[in-house]
Amino acid sequence: MVLKSKDLLGLKELTAEEIEYILNTAKTMKYILISKNKKTPHLQGKSIVTLFYENSTRTRLSFELASKYMSASSANVSASSSSVAKGETLIDTAKTIDMMGTDVIIIRHPMSGAPHLIAKNINASVINAGDGMNEHPTQALLDMFTIVEKKGSLKGLKVAIIGDIYHSRVARSNIYGMTKLGAEVCVAGPATLLPPEIEKLGVKAFNTVQEALIDADVVMGLRIQLERQKKGLFPSIREYSRFFGLDEKRLKLAKEDALIMHPGPVNRGVELSSGVVDCEKSLINEQVTNGVAVRMALLYLLTRRDSVENIN
Amino acid sequence: MVLKSKDLLGLKELTAEEIEYILNTAKTMKYILISKNKKTPHLQGKSIVTLFYENSTRTRLSFELASKYMSASSANVSASSSSVAKGETLIDTAKTIDMMGTDVIIIRHPMSGAPHLIAKNINASVINAGDGMNEHPTQALLDMFTIVEKKGSLKGLKVAIIGDIYHSRVARSNIYGMTKLGAEVCVAGPATLLPPEIEKLGVKAFNTVQEALIDADVVMGLRIQLERQKKGLFPSIREYSRFFGLDEKRLKLAKEDALIMHPGPVNRGVELSSGVVDCEKSLINEQVTNGVAVRMALLYLLTRRDSVENIN
Amino acid sequence: MVLKSKDLLGLKELTAEEIEYILNTAKTMKYILISKNKKTPHLQGKSIVTLFYENSTRTRLSFELASKYMSASSANVSASSSSVAKGETLIDTAKTIDMMGTDVIIIRHPMSGAPHLIAKNINASVINAGDGMNEHPTQALLDMFTIVEKKGSLKGLKVAIIGDIYHSRVARSNIYGMTKLGAEVCVAGPATLLPPEIEKLGVKAFNTVQEALIDADVVMGLRIQLERQKKGLFPSIREYSRFFGLDEKRLKLAKEDALIMHPGPVNRGVELSSGVVDCEKSLINEQVTNGVAVRMALLYLLTRRDSVENIN
Repeated sequence: MVLKSKDLLGLKELTAEEIEYILNTAKTMKYILISKNKKTPHLQGKSIVTLFYENSTRTRLSFELASKYMSASSANVSASSSSVAKGETLIDTAKTIDMMGTDVIIIRHPMSGAPHLIAKNINASVINAGDGMNEHPTQALLDMFTIVEKKGSLKGLKVAIIGDIYHSRVARSNIYGMTKLGAEVCVAGPATLLPPEIEKLGVKAFNTVQEALIDADVVMGLRIQLERQKKGLFPSIREYSRFFGLDEKRLKLAKEDALIMHPGPVNRGVELSSGVVDCEKSLINEQVTNGVAVRMALLYLLTRRDSVENIN
Repeated sequence: MVLKSKDLLGLKELTAEEIEYILNTAKTMKYILISKNKKTPHLQGKSIVTLFYENSTRTRLSFELASKYMSASSANVSASSSSVAKGETLIDTAKTIDMMGTDVIIIRHPMSGAPHLIAKNINASVINAGDGMNEHPTQALLDMFTIVEKKGSLKGLKVAIIGDIYHSRVARSNIYGMTKLGAEVCVAGPATLLPPEIEKLGVKAFNTVQEALIDADVVMGLRIQLERQKKGLFPSIREYSRFFGLDEKRLKLAKEDALIMHPGPVNRGVELSSGVVDCEKSLINEQVTNGVAVRMALLYLLTRRDSVENIN
Repeated sequence: MVLKSKDLLGLKELTAEEIEYILNTAKTMKYILISKNKKTPHLQGKSIVTLFYENSTRTRLSFELASKYMSASSANVSASSSSVAKGETLIDTAKTIDMMGTDVIIIRHPMSGAPHLIAKNINASVINAGDGMNEHPTQALLDMFTIVEKKGSLKGLKVAIIGDIYHSRVARSNIYGMTKLGAEVCVAGPATLLPPEIEKLGVKAFNTVQEALIDADVVMGLRIQLERQKKGLFPSIREYSRFFGLDEKRLKLAKEDALIMHPGPVNRGVELSSGVVDCEKSLINEQVTNGVAVRMALLYLLTRRDSVENIN
């Protein structure tokens, strides 16, 4: 099987089969990743460049290490040091990186659609590492990988996503992906952060965290962007934590074996109590490992498209 | 053949034979670069460090990827995070990097002559990646490579370089290199940006773009530094574009098969109209690819000097 | 033999035997480092991440090159671009890096004890690259390596450390290590920068540089942090240099073959006169090379603990 597109722009664009194919490949990659010798020759002779217009440690590092474990030539470009400051257009910057022999460009950008714009204009594969309020597909893929690893499948599971749904590209990608794989997704958050149109994506939206949690198989807290809170768009941190924070008591509404997840970094005591972050059901650390495995799988699948196509 | 110096400081210092030797080696490197597997063992066991005192995406990334494609150990040091802030002298900083086993230091510095100062004081090879208003030799080498690839040779060609000649290290390096290889170089730009002494370098200087363009085989636009423009040293952007901007109509003065070049990043609508940037004759994207090939060639030639000398 | 701890947090925690074992391993590494081909497969399949909460060129670069010379996958995280800004706790940040398959995290942090806190909470090995005013063990190891290389042993040598003892993690680590290997350590500095408790560590403290220098086998100048000076905690630079600066005349008090050392970067004319920095007895440049060798040795010893333990 081959991914249809040269790019990974969002889960909206993928079929259920493609998602499952990526998750299956990630299984093999995780096996390599947790072994004593992580080095593989899968990306030997390939070139991977991250182009980040927003700060990030975990996503950027996860892609960088995934590239290096697979023997790619990899380099990082960050917005502050880039030609952007010199007035170059986004497409021209990406085109320049493309022309240096780059096989995959991994882009994070504050504007929704930026990766799509680039993808149309260059030969290299483009991976969306987060674009504005649109999608963050590799985060959703690692979330789904983590659930499938624990529960066997997403089919029929009830997944509750709690927090700032409105601004969350993580929520949006997970909604696209999980519903395609047969899960029932509920979202809950403060009224101002819960867009009414969200139900058009096939999810149920609730104004209280309790309604969403009932009988959930998976509970996912979203990160509250303290930066935004300062601008007054939000309830206060104290209010948020009081009405939507996930603590051990509240989680009793969910199934007894419910999985606890969070894309990180966590604001302890805000989205999740410290006890919940560190409890046995919490998969937050395992999500990080799975993130590297999923990204290894994607880089592998996107860079081998050419050779596979030639064979077929 | 062997390059005479351990360093590449400028094209002023190279002979025509040395330049041709580098361009020939770059041909092989380009062949590797555009193949499916870019990884070569040429720099295995060698160490390359970039030391940039000015921001740069394309030049720094081009050197970094060239190093990595050839299996070097490579690392980046940028001025903001460097010991410079701690009061260390330039030579001491370079000496420190030298003493870590580094084989080649690639330096960009706002002061003309900084790479020459360093080169005299350390054992590693030094490559000048742009020093003040002096030289940017690897840019000129990639420009010459691009022209030779299309036209077979620089001999007898008329090359028109348009823009801010005064501040341009790209122009200066190209003038040194191209005249050595037998081209006739013309420059044009606003009177305040056209130093009268430039004709001593063997070029013709014009005050109008039209005079320079007539029957040109190659037209090279230079980047207008918007930063400088703000300081009032320049004509306004609108004036510049009106009198010196290259558009399709103006380019009819040049030969029909004239090549269009620009070192990038381009200010679309200022130095070049958007139509010219994207037209068929434009080699701007190809220049980027050739930049990696030329830098691969240089790194290879400079790091193998020792072994070759031992043989001779 | 095997290092007892998975981490290198300070020389306070190491035995004399462990220190000598590291220094002996570094001898082999230096041999590789100064050879024509520095690439070794020792860290193939291992992953090394630097996590620096303070600026540094030389220490960060030294670790980065050491990792790369030994074929590790290596990446850098700096505080400014890290999740710290997003409110994540230090342990959570380190845990995230740990979960990405990282084998060694190298941390520099302004708070004493930060590496110890992290080490207890993650599986990866932690190397302290400087924590507040506590320790900078790899600097002391390279200093000791340099002395042993020249003098055969530290046993019975008189070592004079001059400068801002109070704030110096380099001094503290050297005091722990050198006294364990049998050296007699003297310190001297301005009264405000000479903590009275320092003598409890088994060293002699003097208020004049002259007393400390008499018959010294090794003279080590410490860096004056100009940043701190500005805050008025210090004597003026002129006063410091007049009473504690090391020049050729003053150094005549030491033994004729005394070694001159400094951790760098040097403020020429403050801690050391320019003549002293560049004199034949000065080992400042060689210290830099030895730093890479010592770090290669440490990375090698820490990452092979598992396999060795399995054998035993």
